[in-house]
This record gives sequence, structure tokens and C-alpha cells, in this order.
Amino acid sequence: MKKNIFYAQSGGVTAVINASACGVIETARKHRNKLGKVYAGRNGILGALTEDMIDTTAESAKTIAALRHTPGGAFGSARYKLKGLEQNRAEYERLIEVFKAHDIGYFFYNGGGDSMDTAYKVSQLGQELGYPVVCIGVPKTVDNDLPVTDTCPGFGSVAKYVAVSTREAALDVASMARTSTRVFILEVMGRHAGWIAAAAGLAGETPGDAPHVILFPEIPFDETTFLARVKDAVTRYEYCVVVVSEGAKYADGRFLAEAGTTDAFGHAQLGGVAATVAQLVKSKLGFKYHYAIADYLQRAARHIASKVDVEQAYAMGKAAVLLALAGENAVMPTIVRKSGAPYRWTVGKVALSRVANKEKMMPRSFITKDGFGITAGCRSYLAPLIQGEDYPPYKNGLPSYVSLKNQRVARRLSTNFVLK
Amino acid sequence: MKKNIFYAQSGGVTAVINASACGVIETARKHRNKLGKVYAGRNGILGALTEDMIDTTAESAKTIAALRHTPGGAFGSARYKLKGLEQNRAEYERLIEVFKAHDIGYFFYNGGGDSMDTAYKVSQLGQELGYPVVCIGVPKTVDNDLPVTDTCPGFGSVAKYVAVSTREAALDVASMARTSTRVFILEVMGRHAGWIAAAAGLAGETPGDAPHVILFPEIPFDETTFLARVKDAVTRYEYCVVVVSEGAKYADGRFLAEAGTTDAFGHAQLGGVAATVAQLVKSKLGFKYHYAIADYLQRAARHIASKVDVEQAYAMGKAAVLLALAGENAVMPTIVRKSGAPYRWTVGKVALSRVANKEKMMPRSFITKDGFGITAGCRSYLAPLIQGEDYPPYKNGLPSYVSLKNQRVARRLSTNFVLK
Repeated sequence: MKKNIFYAQSGGVTAVINASACGVIETARKHRNKLGKVYAGRNGILGALTEDMIDTTAESAKTIAALRHTPGGAFGSARYKLKGLEQNRAEYERLIEVFKAHDIGYFFYNGGGDSMDTAYKVSQLGQELGYPVVCIGVPKTVDNDLPVTDTCPGFGSVAKYVAVSTREAALDVASMARTSTRVFILEVMGRHAGWIAAAAGLAGETPGDAPHVILFPEIPFDETTFLARVKDAVTRYEYCVVVVSEGAKYADGRFLAEAGTTDAFGHAQLGGVAATVAQLVKSKLGFKYHYAIADYLQRAARHIASKVDVEQAYAMGKAAVLLALAGENAVMPTIVRKSGAPYRWTVGKVALSRVANKEKMMPRSFITKDGFGITAGCRSYLAPLIQGEDYPPYKNGLPSYVSLKNQRVARRLSTNFVLK
Repeated sequence: MKKNIFYAQSGGVTAVINASACGVIETARKHRNKLGKVYAGRNGILGALTEDMIDTTAESAKTIAALRHTPGGAFGSARYKLKGLEQNRAEYERLIEVFKAHDIGYFFYNGGGDSMDTAYKVSQLGQELGYPVVCIGVPKTVDNDLPVTDTCPGFGSVAKYVAVSTREAALDVASMARTSTRVFILEVMGRHAGWIAAAAGLAGETPGDAPHVILFPEIPFDETTFLARVKDAVTRYEYCVVVVSEGAKYADGRFLAEAGTTDAFGHAQLGGVAATVAQLVKSKLGFKYHYAIADYLQRAARHIASKVDVEQAYAMGKAAVLLALAGENAVMPTIVRKSGAPYRWTVGKVALSRVANKEKMMPRSFITKDGFGITAGCRSYLAPLIQGEDYPPYKNGLPSYVSLKNQRVARRLSTNFVLK
């Protein structure tokens, strides 16, 4: 009997996570002889826990194809981390119960390190409970912090957005500097690793080009050195562009912008580091500033997505299905770099146990000695990831993004599950 | 004898002000039999006052053509308003002195209402001093607040950026709302008029679509009504997108941005109006929020410029030269709407005296009765202005923007002018 597939989106969404969904669904539809229906979790894993699943067979081929150019999470995502098996075994048992009730034999989990851990545990528990489920991770995170894979779908597009925006804003402030704004600050995402901030470095190609200062989470913030650097840039070029990671920290580990609140995972909610840096520049150097906070705009900016990123996101979804068909289990497809220039890549795989809950930090060798820029090695790594444009179709001057019906799969269980 | 042209960029730059420069220079080059060289002011009008002018004849046709797709102000702009003739006649006299020394017979000033006033005064004083200068304004302002003309070059591209970004971020927050962010706030420009905030309204096409709340400078901010509206949107749609103009005010005229609020630690709240609105939502409704501040990114975003806007910007530069050749003086070319759907426009003209120092406010009839959205009339006005994409060329994944030589015109005066 053909088993159904359960696909869920997890964590912060990206400009291309739906391209992975598109890859999963289109590939599954091509193998109808071996695979059942693709169900998607409404709001990610919650859709399985609460038996609120979406029947993707209700969507036309045209609609599914349009997912490739639609940002956000088309089925809803969730910031919901399953606890350890010992702490909340009930959640895992519930997943298996729902999977069993709906003849689900495959679980494709589209997320980052936390989600790979969940998928791994589900694969273990399914075995133990006598209902084996093929669990395949589909990599996704703008943070680029999954190990083994060359990059993570979602990152290339944020990188491109940040590099393009930095280059454009730099032209603006350079025009204004003589009589107005001297320092422009762009705040970008990246809580632990400076990958996104590093991407801004691609905007500059010759000495003197913006950004003049990048503040990485990896480098403890030193006020004196920073201010000296800003002053130097203004003296040399009349203006200074600073790109600051939301995760920039003091030497003692405090974030420059600590909002005092925490999210579902217990991580501090950040935001507003740009304002902190701007105030510092104004009060200590007296320069007029402007600052921008890209926030969700950066990870939703499908209009300027990287073509390489879109292709990789699709390829990861497709590969997940092919791996399952090939009899693999508890693995995640990866992007393997065959060469840098020209960029050639292929699809590989890694055991979920090797990527679960692991973070890939940016190598220190990617940051210049002074801590404020990127090295040639970093540039060589990043440059291929932003190659190519993959414009969405437009209607009335706006991108034509698709909305799904998101039709519910009829419930088969009488039990409710209360989320903790 | 052929007279030279002096062209200057003024005030905040835009994604398309260089397209106007391109229109001026290319058109002047086509009329070499009647026109001399085009000199550009380094940093706008300061370039004339300090006799620091750029010889655009040093730039190739290819470079000048590339200005059409390059954002920012290629020659430098200035926030420098000349005072009244009575208060600082010396500045005007200096301009005439420099123009005379360099055989400049034409002054094309690319800016907003202030700049139109300056151009008008120069035309008057030139007459009076016996050195008549043909003064033509070239409209430019993202604020869309120049009267008479249907729109101002620069606005259509900001409008498109804001509408696209709102639509994209809305898809993101909608995906996250079940377990994380409920309210997303986007801060946009527009200190006096809500044109840019209104453009965000184009992102929504059917009831329930984002943005759910727009905060205009024209509508006094009422905390109770606002919070009720946010709560209602979250109840109905699970999430709420708020677009707030930097110029949003309380009934007593105070800007929300200078609300003087404090954070959880009692520190003065830093940042713009988005942070103020976000704190309010969090403290009064308890919703998790995210906010973005587009700042310079919105007006520099040439990568997503409106095709209509680019064409109009170029047309205004071209028309300025043609008006001068036709013997006009003290006028500004305008965009005249012939029909809305399909959008058809032509080039008109208006006396500088009629646009100098005047602001076109948004009609109250463009804002819904409840004060939080745009009307069908507003939509009909705005929709044509964001039509079409005009992508810049890309190289290595980044827009290929041009840098000019900006070669200095040899000085002919021995006098220096000290800016006040």
C-alpha cells in the first residue's frame, strides 16, 4: 500500500522555503505509483500534533508551480520545539498516532538544526513503537548555520538582498554626506553567526567602497575601536556605512540591543541595535545619521531572490523525495560545492544525527584581522550564492504571489492534543 | 555664442534622480549646435557657490546612459536652502558671478519645492543684474508633494518598493502568527504628507489583506482606536500588518517618534516611530511584534524601480532642455495625466512661481473614513505610478551601478565663497 507524506515548515520562513515545498510536491506527484498524497502541516508541526493537516492534492499543478516564486510559508510555519524524548514523550507518541491514522509513512521536515533534531527523534521513536516512519530533513535557514551542507536554502536570497541594499543605500548617503547624513547604519539578522552581515561585504568591490564597517556577533564590540573606524571613514570618504548584525555583543556577552523579552525557544528577542549604534555615533562623534532595520523585509524579499538559492531550495525538496524513494531514512540532502569559480554544486546527503542541534559558525578566517570586514576567502565562499536573478511574475506593478486553498484533511482521530 | 548649462541635484536623492540627469545630458548632447557643455554641481548648489563644478563632457555616452539605472545622486546633492533675496542676497549674486565666469546661460535645478523657489529667484536676480539666466526646474521628490504635476519622479519607485515590501513581509508574518509574531510594523518616509504610507495600501487587493492599519500624518493618532483596530485584525486574521508614516502625530501635533517613552529598563526609548508603536502594541495588547524601518533603502531601491517612474524622470530631464531651447524661462515641466486606466500621460509645464515653496497634501478623500486605509479613489490615483519593472543590469549577482569620473571644471574666479 502506498504511504502518504507529511511535509511541515518550521521556524522563521524565507523567500524560498516554498520553493522547497514545490520541489517536494512536484516530485511526489511524479511518483504517484509509489507515493500517496502529500499532506502539509497547518502551522508546521502543530498541524500534526493537532491533526490539522492540509491536503495538497486540492491544489492545481499551476498553483503548486507558483510556490516556487512565492515567499513566506504557504502552509504556515511554527516556532515550536519539541522537547527531549524523556521530557515530553507524549508529543512524539502523538505524532506517530496521527501519522498512523492517516497512513503517513514519510515525514519531510523543512527547517534548521532544531527541526533536524525533531525529525531524527521521530525516526527513532517510530521504530521503537513499531510504526517506522521515513524521516527526511529539508534544510532551511537564513542563518546559514547548518553544518555539512555548503549553504542553506534561504541564505543566498537574504545575502543578495543585504548586499544589494547596502550598495544602494551607500550611493544615497554618499550623495548626501556633504551637507547632511554622514553615517548610515543597516541592521541585519544573524543572532549567533555573522553570515548575513558578512554578505553585506559583497557590496564593496574596491577599497573605499561601502560597507566601511561590519559589526559581527563573532567579534566583541569595542566602542573605542569602532568609533575610530567610523571617524576614519568619514575623514577619508566623507561618509561611512555600517552594517550591524542583530547579534552584535559586548565582550561580556551582553547584546548591544537586549530587548529584555524571550521567544518560545527561550532565546532573547533582539531588535534595535541600529538605534544603539546610531546614538553612539551621534553622541561621541556628532555625525548626523540615518539607520534602517531590514527585519522581515530581508528574508521575505522574493522579488530580489538569488537564482542559485531558488534552484537549491527546489533541489533540496526534490532530493528529499528521491532519497525516501531510494530507501534512505534519517538523512538530510545537502548542497555539495564541486567548484567555486565557476560555481558548480551537486546534491549530497548527511545523517540527521550529524546535523541535529548543531550550529555552523563563521570561521574567524572569514573576518579581517581588524574585525570589521570580510576576507578574500569569505568573498569567494559567499559570491556564488547570490548569483542570478529569478524575478517573480508581476501583475499591476506587484509580484503575483500565490494563495493556496489550504483545504483540511478530514480528521480520523477523536482525541484532541493540548499543546503545552 | 553657445551658452553652457549648469545642472544641480537638490535635497534627498531618489532611485531615479540620475535618470533625470541622464535626460538632461543626453538631450543637451543632441543639441550641440545650440547648447554648450553641461556642468554639474558637485554637491548640488554648493558646487556653484564654491565654483566646484563637474565637467560632464568627460563622461562617455555609455556612462551617461548608465545614469538611467543608477540610484543616488551621481554628482552629490545638498540639503542647502538659499535664504530670501533680502536676507542673503550675496548667495544669489555669487551664483550669477560663477555663471557669468563660466558662460552659463541655463540653470536646471533638480529638486522639490524649495529648489523651485531658488530657481525662480535666480531667474529674477539674473534679469536684475543684467545677466539673464534661463532657469528650469526639474521635479524630484519621493514625498510627491509638488503641486500641479500629476506626480513627482522618485515617488513611483518608493511607492512600488513599499507596496512590494508590505506584501512580502505580510506573507512572512502570516506564516509565523500562530506561534510567534502577531504584529508587524513597517515604518516609511513622509514627514508631512502620507503619500508613501498610502502606497503600502496597494499591497492589499481583497478584504483582509495586509496592510490592516496605515497610520498617516494627516490623521491624528488615537491610541484607543488604533489598539482596537490591531486587536480586531489579529482576531480575524491571526496577524496584523501596520504601516506607519514617520510623520504620524498625536492630535496636539507632537510626533509619535518623539514620544519620549522608556523601555522595560527605564531607559529612554531609542529609535523611530516604529519602535514606539511596537512598544505600545506589546505593552497594551501583549502581542509579539517585529518591526522594520525602510529608511534610505526605500528611496535608493533602484533594483525594484517603477518603469513608469524611470520614464517620467528621464522625460522631465529631457523636457527641461527642450523647454529652454523653446525659449521658455522660469518654468518646470510637469506630468499631465490624460487617463487613469490605461494610464496615459504627457509632458506639460508650469511657472516656477506657482510651485515654489508649495506643498501638495494628500486629499482627505484618499483616506478611508476610519482613517486607517486608502479609498478606491486613492488606489486609482496611485496604481498607475508603480506599473512596470525596469531592472538594472547585474554583474556577479549585484546591480551594476555606474561611477562617474566627476572631473572638475578649471576655476576661473580667484574669489572664494564661504558658506554660512
